[in-house]
Amino acid sequence: MKKSYRQMDKNELLTIKAALEEKYKEEQAKGLQLNMARGKPGAEQLALAMPMLDVINSSCDMNTVLGNDTRNYGDLDGIGECRRLMAAMMEVEKDNVIVYGNSSLNIMYDTVSRSVTHGVNGSTPWCKLDKVKFLCPVPGYDRHFKITEFFGIEMINIPLNSDGPDMDMVEQYVNNDASVKGIWCVPKYSNPTGISYSDEVVKRFAALKPAAEDFRIFWDNAYCIHHIYKDKQDKILNILDECEKAGNPDMVYMFASTSKISFPGSGVSAIATSLKNVEFIMKQLTVQTIGHDKINQLRHSRFFGDLDGLKAHMAKHADILRPKFEAVLKELDEELTGLEIGEWIEPRGGYFISFNAMEGCAKAIVAKCKECGVVLTGAGATFPYGKDPKDSNIRIAPSFPSAEDMAAAAKVFVLCVKLASVEKLLSEM
Amino acid sequence: MKKSYRQMDKNELLTIKAALEEKYKEEQAKGLQLNMARGKPGAEQLALAMPMLDVINSSCDMNTVLGNDTRNYGDLDGIGECRRLMAAMMEVEKDNVIVYGNSSLNIMYDTVSRSVTHGVNGSTPWCKLDKVKFLCPVPGYDRHFKITEFFGIEMINIPLNSDGPDMDMVEQYVNNDASVKGIWCVPKYSNPTGISYSDEVVKRFAALKPAAEDFRIFWDNAYCIHHIYKDKQDKILNILDECEKAGNPDMVYMFASTSKISFPGSGVSAIATSLKNVEFIMKQLTVQTIGHDKINQLRHSRFFGDLDGLKAHMAKHADILRPKFEAVLKELDEELTGLEIGEWIEPRGGYFISFNAMEGCAKAIVAKCKECGVVLTGAGATFPYGKDPKDSNIRIAPSFPSAEDMAAAAKVFVLCVKLASVEKLLSEM
Repeated sequence: MKKSYRQMDKNELLTIKAALEEKYKEEQAKGLQLNMARGKPGAEQLALAMPMLDVINSSCDMNTVLGNDTRNYGDLDGIGECRRLMAAMMEVEKDNVIVYGNSSLNIMYDTVSRSVTHGVNGSTPWCKLDKVKFLCPVPGYDRHFKITEFFGIEMINIPLNSDGPDMDMVEQYVNNDASVKGIWCVPKYSNPTGISYSDEVVKRFAALKPAAEDFRIFWDNAYCIHHIYKDKQDKILNILDECEKAGNPDMVYMFASTSKISFPGSGVSAIATSLKNVEFIMKQLTVQTIGHDKINQLRHSRFFGDLDGLKAHMAKHADILRPKFEAVLKELDEELTGLEIGEWIEPRGGYFISFNAMEGCAKAIVAKCKECGVVLTGAGATFPYGKDPKDSNIRIAPSFPSAEDMAAAAKVFVLCVKLASVEKLLSEM
Repeated sequence: MKKSYRQMDKNELLTIKAALEEKYKEEQAKGLQLNMARGKPGAEQLALAMPMLDVINSSCDMNTVLGNDTRNYGDLDGIGECRRLMAAMMEVEKDNVIVYGNSSLNIMYDTVSRSVTHGVNGSTPWCKLDKVKFLCPVPGYDRHFKITEFFGIEMINIPLNSDGPDMDMVEQYVNNDASVKGIWCVPKYSNPTGISYSDEVVKRFAALKPAAEDFRIFWDNAYCIHHIYKDKQDKILNILDECEKAGNPDMVYMFASTSKISFPGSGVSAIATSLKNVEFIMKQLTVQTIGHDKINQLRHSRFFGDLDGLKAHMAKHADILRPKFEAVLKELDEELTGLEIGEWIEPRGGYFISFNAMEGCAKAIVAKCKECGVVLTGAGATFPYGKDPKDSNIRIAPSFPSAEDMAAAAKVFVLCVKLASVEKLLSEM
């Protein structure tokens, strides 16, 4: 076990600092250009879905199983086989699913936007209310927070623990404050911490007694089948079922997409929710669009076939992602364990590794990495308004670079963590 | 020339009525099942674009001209070559174009929705205003009216003449009433009348002096290259240019899509507007989505190549549509000319023939057609709130049935027009 930086005296730290600075100069001289900023699939992953592009061609029957021509108008809620496929992936019934276009973020945006202009199943439109609040488990997904910020919705930080959000706090807010209208959740392989919600947390969500009739859980099931390991796989309770059992059938919107299964930007996305919610959403959808891209829905349905097809495909993704995650985790473990200058969780799926630096060090680490040619997600991005109160959390996205590049980037990262931490400790002496 | 029904006495009308009723029974007995309700391309038209599905396959280079991978995140405003293609079609510059997903209706919805929640380039959000009004040239496109109705925007009917909307009335409203925030226009091959706006009308639009700074022209250029004839083609002035010249550069949003060029539901759509407007829209788009389907954008760009490619493709559509339009027009001309019971315009493009029956007859005609197995767009649909004050306008969509079926349907239609008109005239005696 290495000696903790926190137990070192000034001279020890100064000695280490000098050595780290030397090493930093060496790394800088390498002229690296690596990007760990966004959860982008790498080239190898994209190649996995290329055969999908041959599935639909000019000699194909373009009709759905029910005989509807996917090339023409119709099937506003998605073609039957694609609704069934997405339902299987989301572990819900086909009738609860509307298949949209290529972006689940767009569905979330639309869902908030509709609530702002038209309320929720007959409630007062949020734009007519003085105050609307959302709970935001942190660290969380920056793009969720951007949506609520865009609509002027006040965001309240909720600590995200290793088993899910702090449910005492969630219950306190939701059950007592009628201006709390929603909560952003990534329940499985959370963005960015990688944790999955425990059964107890899911049950407590389902058992909420919201003060607001139009309170909704925004359940972004982005990584529902996005495992990294074949053996160690998280499983979460089905929130739609649990809400139904708890007498809150309409309280949740679940979102998912194939953006990180087929192609980011050219996948299909879906919402799953109660039949009553589906009915209300369809009233908007009828006005909003003539329908989504059904040929692409057919392409996905025929390529993947069923849930087993999806899972087999995701196993290939896992084989590509695992070494990249492991390269980072190995470096963190070997270089930082025992130093007491950072914490991280080993995720079993998803797209991120979340690192909590010593308080007040995140921005400095990200800046130091950048000067060494390693781009990370901006510090603070994982918090509402881009403000991490502790300046501690850093999101690492290991998917895009190669495993070798990831190893090189991780070396720079731990070096910067050490350097920033030493500087911080010295500044406090 | 046939004798006008209006100049007939009661006995003449009764004799005609009896003969028409006889014929109506015969038609009913045929058990027709024909649909002229919506502007859906027919099977032959869809077949034209099938080779497009081979253009992108697993052995393709998936990069844009600029080297961006269309399979991954990026190019939020659309890939360069597709923006260029859509710009050429819309007769604007590439920088003024954002390529969206598959539905221009969705862009229009988003544009109104954004104005409701966030205003226009910094103006007060429409949801904070007591009253928002849109001008609606009538008859017009039902789905435009549905969007404004959905947002509780008051709609004001403006007569659509053979050269465009009644501009005296448009100027009167726009230049004096600050609650008038928009006008819906289909400037070329108008839905449903088929007329195109004259140069003078376009110039008067551009020269408007709106009382509201956030007034915008919603210029749905849905049929910009959708000619029916090779020789007789309408041409309209470029509204973006004209607005710029008139000192109103930000006053117009132009919309277009390839829904009726490639595939309805699987095409690409675009907005064209001033750079200032583009900038404001991009602030929303960044929050709303991770981007649109760039593989489909690449598919369209490579298949059509350039504007000449688009035009050559549309000439094939014209060859298919022309006989269908002509079958209806021939029937109308042969059977109704001189009777003074209806008026219509011979469109040179677009998807519709608009028929104005005697006042108070449209609903009766549509109902009679339905009982004979011929489904038309619901009477009134071409007006805001579905209310045609004169109960006169009927939209005929000749694209979906075969030319033979169209001829059969047109026969039923003129029969029902005659019968309803005779009944109306008799009821007034």
